[in-house]
Amino acid sequence: MESDENLRTRGAQKIGEILGQTAADVENSLGDIAPDLATYVLETIYGQIYQSPTLDSKTRQIVTVASLATLGTAGPQLRTHIGGALRCGVKREELIEIMLQLVPYAGVATAINGVIACREVFAKHDQ
Amino acid sequence: MESDENLRTRGAQKIGEILGQTAADVENSLGDIAPDLATYVLETIYGQIYQSPTLDSKTRQIVTVASLATLGTAGPQLRTHIGGALRCGVKREELIEIMLQLVPYAGVATAINGVIACREVFAKHDQ
Amino acid sequence: MESDENLRTRGAQKIGEILGQTAADVENSLGDIAPDLATYVLETIYGQIYQSPTLDSKTRQIVTVASLATLGTAGPQLRTHIGGALRCGVKREELIEIMLQLVPYAGVATAINGVIACREVFAKHDQ
Amino acid sequence: MESDENLRTRGAQKIGEILGQTAADVENSLGDIAPDLATYVLETIYGQIYQSPTLDSKTRQIVTVASLATLGTAGPQLRTHIGGALRCGVKREELIEIMLQLVPYAGVATAINGVIACREVFAKHDQ
Amino acid sequence: MESDENLRTRGAQKIGEILGQTAADVENSLGDIAPDLATYVLETIYGQIYQSPTLDSKTRQIVTVASLATLGTAGPQLRTHIGGALRCGVKREELIEIMLQLVPYAGVATAINGVIACREVFAKHDQ
Amino acid sequence: MESDENLRTRGAQKIGEILGQTAADVENSLGDIAPDLATYVLETIYGQIYQSPTLDSKTRQIVTVASLATLGTAGPQLRTHIGGALRCGVKREELIEIMLQLVPYAGVATAINGVIACREVFAKHDQ
Repeated sequence: MESDENLRTRGAQKIGEILGQTAADVENSLGDIAPDLATYVLETIYGQIYQSPTLDSKTRQIVTVASLATLGTAGPQLRTHIGGALRCGVKREELIEIMLQLVPYAGVATAINGVIACREVFAKHDQ
Repeated sequence: MESDENLRTRGAQKIGEILGQTAADVENSLGDIAPDLATYVLETIYGQIYQSPTLDSKTRQIVTVASLATLGTAGPQLRTHIGGALRCGVKREELIEIMLQLVPYAGVATAINGVIACREVFAKHDQ
Repeated sequence: MESDENLRTRGAQKIGEILGQTAADVENSLGDIAPDLATYVLETIYGQIYQSPTLDSKTRQIVTVASLATLGTAGPQLRTHIGGALRCGVKREELIEIMLQLVPYAGVATAINGVIACREVFAKHDQ
Repeated sequence: MESDENLRTRGAQKIGEILGQTAADVENSLGDIAPDLATYVLETIYGQIYQSPTLDSKTRQIVTVASLATLGTAGPQLRTHIGGALRCGVKREELIEIMLQLVPYAGVATAINGVIACREVFAKHDQ
Repeated sequence: MESDENLRTRGAQKIGEILGQTAADVENSLGDIAPDLATYVLETIYGQIYQSPTLDSKTRQIVTVASLATLGTAGPQLRTHIGGALRCGVKREELIEIMLQLVPYAGVATAINGVIACREVFAKHDQ
Repeated sequence: MESDENLRTRGAQKIGEILGQTAADVENSLGDIAPDLATYVLETIYGQIYQSPTLDSKTRQIVTVASLATLGTAGPQLRTHIGGALRCGVKREELIEIMLQLVPYAGVATAINGVIACREVFAKHDQ
């Protein structure tokens, strides 16, 4: 993927705001093996999709956490975005309640695994 | 399942508020063949889970729409809850943006199918 | 796939017993375009996997219905195997209760879609 | 969620019967962070859904194991319910055969992962 | 999403090559309700991801068909990309064999639904 | 399942060619607890499905990797088949590009987890 300096700058700022990460964090984790994936994350996800003012960051994180928990196959990403949700102002008890709201739709195992993910992220924040 | 009059009353009120449905609607759709499922919907989902004040109805509908769209296997329920989201104050452009926010996590086909579901529900509301 | 006359005969007998179908039914539905898939269905699924005496046919159908309903992406096959379950002695109210048992694990939309599939199959049997 | 003493008592008895767990086990694992989820597990799942006499406990566990294995995202819960199935009289070779019955519908990786889960649970029971 | 004229032009050319569609087709199907989604499809998917020379178009379509068939929730998109695969030189019997190759991993219902999708697309091409 | 010496021999040869494994490897990993599953893997998957000349081994591995990565629930099998893909001539950068091609359809978390699986398999091959 062709990199666009402008999108990269906007994306880096947004990922800092949402996840507290830098462009270098993304590039260090993926750039050695899949630099295009790092570009996609920074420029498309954070530089474009997250830029629209139609949803505030808090709501975006609620949507993201609900989707990743429902998938059930993205444990590390769910933990990252639970951390992002806290950073964007979602309260701990709201995150737990989001997992409860998933019980009827995505099942109780999804909700339990989501609550366990919350517990891990909360514990890390308390250190 | 044993029915509890108190939960049934609370659930009926909540499903009215969220989906504009009555207890009779739920019972008519499922009661002939699976009355326990109607009880679960009214008393457990709307009479208990939706009752907690930790999340407002608008946020609950955002979580529900994100989860049902991500599942991709619950078309009729997704349409019902898109309608519920509108009823709870989620704007049309916010619903479309929720589907866009699902692109990176649940994929573009999920997002397109979600947008098509929105278009159908919006069209019905315009009649 | 190489066909094995012996497995084909056993599979044809078993699919008759479970689904009330003949080898010709399977071959007519898939043989024009994917004859190897017809061979797989007849010889591997019904000629081998279904042959083990460790589970009786009724239990196999319960497992199959629970799995197909949980997948949520196999509507026609779910309907076929609900019919097979009835044929193997699973009662209508047991099938509905199986869908209720899925509520906690696969979610309420899965259960509702499963109940609706049951209603359709039962109605066809009543004609 | 409002707790109902009667459902709690029934649920505690049932979860003892099925999983050999106590109400305190459920509350200790979830009560610190998500007490409503513990209430849901005890009172709705075991106090209501599992109470219907339409399916015996052995059949319920077969349905549950088939559904959780099919989901593929609920490893710890699958292990718990394989243990519950043994407790309810499902034999070890029947559990392995259930995983084989999933091969055609949920795929061979699901079946292999299910067999590996069985091996772990059986080994723990042999200690 | 901010549109980039250069990516749009490249994407339009690529979607013509792969799917025989024009930029206007994408915009007409999504632009009324979700113009950003049309931009994502044209500029990110076809203008960036599909541009890398590391995989040829035929291989990309094989990956896409395998993934969409495995998802099982993206019927219209699967049909579109089966058509795209034909256009990129994948033969009909290869598409059927791809569905057979999915049998062990994604299950027989996925394979059958994939074969049925192929039959529909092939029939449309024969008209 | 009844074993067929002929299919077993062919399957053993094919699994050697694709995965570098022997029949004994398959039997040692599953034969103690689920010998029928070992038979299915050797005789049905490698002795029948993989035998058709319609797709070459390289293409089969591309389909398999795309499907297993999309499922997201088959980590060990994905790693095994990434190794098989390398063995069949898929280049490392092609495997990474396959994961990128999954971004639009199966989501970015699937792609990231796929890239991480590649990195692990590549590192093992470098030892």
